[in-house]
Amino acid sequence: MAIMEISVVPLGTGQTGVGEYVARIINYLKQNGIPHTLTDMGTILEGDIDQLLGVARVLHELPFHENVQRVVTHIAIDDRRDRKVHLDDKIKAVSQRLS
Amino acid sequence: MAIMEISVVPLGTGQTGVGEYVARIINYLKQNGIPHTLTDMGTILEGDIDQLLGVARVLHELPFHENVQRVVTHIAIDDRRDRKVHLDDKIKAVSQRLS
Amino acid sequence: MAIMEISVVPLGTGQTGVGEYVARIINYLKQNGIPHTLTDMGTILEGDIDQLLGVARVLHELPFHENVQRVVTHIAIDDRRDRKVHLDDKIKAVSQRLS
Amino acid sequence: MAIMEISVVPLGTGQTGVGEYVARIINYLKQNGIPHTLTDMGTILEGDIDQLLGVARVLHELPFHENVQRVVTHIAIDDRRDRKVHLDDKIKAVSQRLS
Repeated sequence: MAIMEISVVPLGTGQTGVGEYVARIINYLKQNGIPHTLTDMGTILEGDIDQLLGVARVLHELPFHENVQRVVTHIAIDDRRDRKVHLDDKIKAVSQRLS
Repeated sequence: MAIMEISVVPLGTGQTGVGEYVARIINYLKQNGIPHTLTDMGTILEGDIDQLLGVARVLHELPFHENVQRVVTHIAIDDRRDRKVHLDDKIKAVSQRLS
Repeated sequence: MAIMEISVVPLGTGQTGVGEYVARIINYLKQNGIPHTLTDMGTILEGDIDQLLGVARVLHELPFHENVQRVVTHIAIDDRRDRKVHLDDKIKAVSQRLS
Repeated sequence: MAIMEISVVPLGTGQTGVGEYVARIINYLKQNGIPHTLTDMGTILEGDIDQLLGVARVLHELPFHENVQRVVTHIAIDDRRDRKVHLDDKIKAVSQRLS
């Protein structure tokens, strides 16, 4: 099981804002029942690596449906095979260690 | 004002877990009253770019205090000069757009 | 056509070095005739987005074949649909602009 | 000694191309005699961590001088304290391992 963070940035839109494109991502995830956490810098998902890269493929494509011609996508994957991992696990684990 | 995400990963510790090192980061931020949000993939902070890079410098160094010999740090900065930005602003802005 | 950079870092190996794992990545790319550029911080490939994510899937898995239990992978994709892009294109384009 | 990769992307320019901004980065580095390698996905530098973050600060600011209002910068730092590292070291080390 893995955790993936993805950020999809359209270039050449002429706008500084990208909220419209982030909203399309979150709508897609909600409509497809895919667990996720929206942060100020991206969207975090859990799943096995094949599922995650499959979702990344779809999310990366969304701005192109809106006539965007260039998209820069950053993906970070943290994949453990020694135990299951879920959203919020790491936050909880760190909280327990705080002095 | 900018938003920065940082993840600091020690190499060569012989452990798969890094929670101990993340806890040191969060403790530092709490003890110094620096607003932050811990996510499953990193820590997100707000501030002006000089403050943020100053904090990044400190957080990157923390594992070296524990005899770690190699650290890989990823930093993403989203810096706007057309208006102030704060933690959770983007999450709220996207929520308002959701269908 | 897109350009992708990927870095695959194994955790918990007990070694600070990761050259052994990078060499496995480059060997895989060479043996499969996949154009690539090795840099000090990752490996850069060209292709369409489906090919690139397919290769990313394989490269991410390689350390797990060596009994690694945790892998952190970073992927950056720059995908243009307004024209073809190839390795070294951007380097050449910037060189022509230099004063 | 550390190796840093940086990519600085201006948003809201209305252009898909960013070569103009990359050229400003490379010109700055050349004019200041800072060793660097331009790749298709960013610029790689060597130095100690304080020098590198100082340069990152300058490079991140460059697009704002051109009336850009939003900049997204990604920085990856690989910092070793067990030995000196220089540009191209890792490429050479991996080449020696290739079968």
